[in-house]
Amino acid sequence: MDILVEDSRENWLEAMDDEELLLMVNARFYEAFENGDLHSLDEVWSHGETVRCVHPGWGTIVGWRSIRKSWESIIANGQSIRFSLRNVVPRIYNDLGVIVLEEEIVFGGDQVPQIVRAVATNLFERSGSEWKMVHHHASPVMLNAGNELSYRFN
Amino acid sequence: MDILVEDSRENWLEAMDDEELLLMVNARFYEAFENGDLHSLDEVWSHGETVRCVHPGWGTIVGWRSIRKSWESIIANGQSIRFSLRNVVPRIYNDLGVIVLEEEIVFGGDQVPQIVRAVATNLFERSGSEWKMVHHHASPVMLNAGNELSYRFN
Repeated sequence: MDILVEDSRENWLEAMDDEELLLMVNARFYEAFENGDLHSLDEVWSHGETVRCVHPGWGTIVGWRSIRKSWESIIANGQSIRFSLRNVVPRIYNDLGVIVLEEEIVFGGDQVPQIVRAVATNLFERSGSEWKMVHHHASPVMLNAGNELSYRFN
Repeated sequence: MDILVEDSRENWLEAMDDEELLLMVNARFYEAFENGDLHSLDEVWSHGETVRCVHPGWGTIVGWRSIRKSWESIIANGQSIRFSLRNVVPRIYNDLGVIVLEEEIVFGGDQVPQIVRAVATNLFERSGSEWKMVHHHASPVMLNAGNELSYRFN
């Protein structure tokens, strides 16, 4: 006889493997970004003083306080932004989760949309049963890989 | 009575701690790049099919064969390039070493030198007693962090 037990959200989380949890947190990061949801970004990120964030074309921002301010200003800018994530590759090294991926970013909303491409390296540290983002490095793709002989970018 | 034993290179390597070894391999990567030394790049990099490289402004190159070709073309370009590395921060998670840093890159040689800034996320996997590069993500710094309200980069 089979007994059907209704899954609580907790049990469901326990049933997910480590990699699925990691991918879920990564997805929550981009959803929070799309939705301009600072509260979710608060939850996704580690609040340490050594966490790092590189927005495309920016320098490194160090520490959660400064990183949060950067998100505040990006969100306050009010621009519609939608992500398509491609080639999302997760890898877990004990207490560090690495996700590399390609971002196709659509800006615009009601205006004529503009599509740009970026690549990202996202790092997450295990904190208890959760993964917390400790590093986000996104960079603009301005050339087609392999089609340019020069290393120069300006 | 003290016995002075002449250090072999091997003993000297054993005396280095993990973080020093990691920093040394990272430094060798940039030296190889400056010197256009493909043989050293061969030694620094893991030769796996899933290693990844993002040159500034480029998309992701996957796998050592393709990555090596990109170095060949960059080196064949023959441009003089010198790095100053700043804020080099290493962190070790068991078998993964993470180094984030800022690159000040001087191009030019005999011509009028041009200085550009980049940030990099470099990942190294432990392979026996060595660290091998498995991920290099470098991106151009085109804005001053925090001075721009827009996330757009073009």
